[in-house]
Amino acid sequence: MSQAASPAKLSEEKLARAALTYLAEPGDPALGALLGICEPAEVLAAIKADMLPGAGPGCGDTPASRAALERALGRWRVRLPALPDDAGIADARCDDIRLICPGDPEWPRPLDHLGQARPYALWLRGSADLRLACVRSVSIVGSRAATGYGGHVAGEIAADLAERGWAIVSGGAYGIDAAAHRGALAAAGTTIAVLACGVDYPYPAGHADLFAAITAEGLVVSEWPPGCRPARMRFLVRNRAIAAVACGTVIVEAGERSGALNTAQHAANLGKPLMAVPGPVTSAQSAGCHRIIREWGATCVTRATDIIELLSPLGVPDAPAPGGGLESASSPVSGPPGPDSMPSRDDLDTDSARVLDALPARGGAGTSTIAVDAGVDLDTVLRCLGRLAGYGFIERGDGGWRLRRRG
Amino acid sequence: MSQAASPAKLSEEKLARAALTYLAEPGDPALGALLGICEPAEVLAAIKADMLPGAGPGCGDTPASRAALERALGRWRVRLPALPDDAGIADARCDDIRLICPGDPEWPRPLDHLGQARPYALWLRGSADLRLACVRSVSIVGSRAATGYGGHVAGEIAADLAERGWAIVSGGAYGIDAAAHRGALAAAGTTIAVLACGVDYPYPAGHADLFAAITAEGLVVSEWPPGCRPARMRFLVRNRAIAAVACGTVIVEAGERSGALNTAQHAANLGKPLMAVPGPVTSAQSAGCHRIIREWGATCVTRATDIIELLSPLGVPDAPAPGGGLESASSPVSGPPGPDSMPSRDDLDTDSARVLDALPARGGAGTSTIAVDAGVDLDTVLRCLGRLAGYGFIERGDGGWRLRRRG
Repeated sequence: MSQAASPAKLSEEKLARAALTYLAEPGDPALGALLGICEPAEVLAAIKADMLPGAGPGCGDTPASRAALERALGRWRVRLPALPDDAGIADARCDDIRLICPGDPEWPRPLDHLGQARPYALWLRGSADLRLACVRSVSIVGSRAATGYGGHVAGEIAADLAERGWAIVSGGAYGIDAAAHRGALAAAGTTIAVLACGVDYPYPAGHADLFAAITAEGLVVSEWPPGCRPARMRFLVRNRAIAAVACGTVIVEAGERSGALNTAQHAANLGKPLMAVPGPVTSAQSAGCHRIIREWGATCVTRATDIIELLSPLGVPDAPAPGGGLESASSPVSGPPGPDSMPSRDDLDTDSARVLDALPARGGAGTSTIAVDAGVDLDTVLRCLGRLAGYGFIERGDGGWRLRRRG
Repeated sequence: MSQAASPAKLSEEKLARAALTYLAEPGDPALGALLGICEPAEVLAAIKADMLPGAGPGCGDTPASRAALERALGRWRVRLPALPDDAGIADARCDDIRLICPGDPEWPRPLDHLGQARPYALWLRGSADLRLACVRSVSIVGSRAATGYGGHVAGEIAADLAERGWAIVSGGAYGIDAAAHRGALAAAGTTIAVLACGVDYPYPAGHADLFAAITAEGLVVSEWPPGCRPARMRFLVRNRAIAAVACGTVIVEAGERSGALNTAQHAANLGKPLMAVPGPVTSAQSAGCHRIIREWGATCVTRATDIIELLSPLGVPDAPAPGGGLESASSPVSGPPGPDSMPSRDDLDTDSARVLDALPARGGAGTSTIAVDAGVDLDTVLRCLGRLAGYGFIERGDGGWRLRRRG
């Protein structure tokens, strides 16, 4: 399970985790508990053999929990006939779909804060690096039955954030979710759709084009395997991942019973910054936003800069677009600062300065190469690369990270 | 200055305080300091004689403060030629204009929390009892350049509050202020306009009819004497009184530089509940509201019940209209509860039960009669009468307070 594991071992673990995404619903507490004490391959073997792994400490060591695990085993075995063989799982990863597991370089560390509710694995489709994108990311979610006002505001805020180097996470649904994704795409930013079905499953069907665009520039992500259909409960389970991966969550329009409030609750439970955009008090679609501002202490935000201020408590300056931003910002918020307002190398913290020094003078370099050269750990490299891109020092191209010509 | 003073003494004090409202601007720190240590008549005599009262403790007992007081004396003496004589001041109180002073039964106690900035006296025009009205009152203020949305919401909230027995305090200006006053009047409730000019001065001129309606059902109040014109600085000084007299302040629409934010600041400084109604983030007229929610901790309120909940922390139930409320509530908020949901006598606190017992079985009784019969002080009687009226136990008629037939 650690990064130091041998390739063969890692492959066995990945295959087992992939298989578990077929057999168990994400967030299943019994599987979460088992994975806390057993290797994924052991758990998979136990399901196939219809026999619990040997009773270790904490593993079914009371009659009650043992009974619960046995019931779970029966639940997971129901899906065994539909489980693809190893070749089939490998096929599912063909082409543009990949699988990442806890400990992988692309695995977002914030997901580990979910504890036993952590995803078993994630299926990904798209060109962005999930972990890197999440370093500076905001979840923007809201009502499917959005008003014109809500759609407009979600799109504007997402575009402004994306122009400043923030990735936009949402759920790919109609309404606010779609407006947030589209706003980020319009600003040539990174956007991540976390779905409650397979990354290749066209739901909602009307969003096939949107998902194609997201895949080209960002990522479509799911805890469910390719081909899996959405279901009502899956949206609620999915919402915890939307709240967990991003630095903060913004609700733009939510009726009193909107599913977006479930995502908001997850963000609050995780101790993540929770924000809401107000609207007319005469609009039922803003009632949930106003309630969580009043009763849950969600921060009232009205524009991208409010959000960046809240998520950058140490005063990280508002960053320019890391290359490729739309020059014609249609937003009322002032655009990125010009080169003169960027910090100089002398203003950088030590780690960022070392990472910047590790970039080759010509051409690009990969993240791990930079980590080795800079002599800092991978987490720090990722954080520094995001910061340096935000400041406009570096940009990402086909050959990896490279210095950006300034001025 | 105490209620135990003889009628002759009180009259002298009232005449002196009335004269001071002609000579000094309200909130003058020098006059506030002098009135803290000298009788109003002494201060008036000192101004007329151009000689500071004998140096007592705290009264100009340093060269610097003595110099400041002497400058103030010169400032106040400038207006001496325009000061009416005692007969003239008595004339100003003729007809429907009356003067109340600190310690008078109608003087709202919360004004005393202003300390040295307490009004010297108040000029009143109208039929309501100021102190009683303020026991359950909300200040609703906002932008003069209100949008249709803001005017609608201010009117609805004011009407809903008025129907539930809350008096609406505002500043008599165009826009939100006018909508709040009109909402209360439409619900046959009590509304109080606190002006920055004489209570007989028609400013704004277009509100002559509104002020007439307010006078008939509620009160027009001012710290400035009859005939006094408004001035820019007077609005800011007036705002502290709007914030001070009410139980809480609600801002409905305020641009980033709106004078309503000055009232909000006074409410916050006084430790009074501060509330703001959100609106579209695309509207500049709501920007001030959103900012004070985010940065000052103002509570986000969307309807009358939100406000009542905040101002009734001990869980006083939502009260029915104390007679005369419009039956056809046009608001989306549910109407007053029926008789079945009213508390019974057994649910009342001891003071309220004693006050209720003191009301005559037939006919009405005045506030002081009730206080004597119940054996509780005047403040407590006023608070209990307001509560009992809110619960629907009693109502106010020509003969004073009387029991209300229930069911």
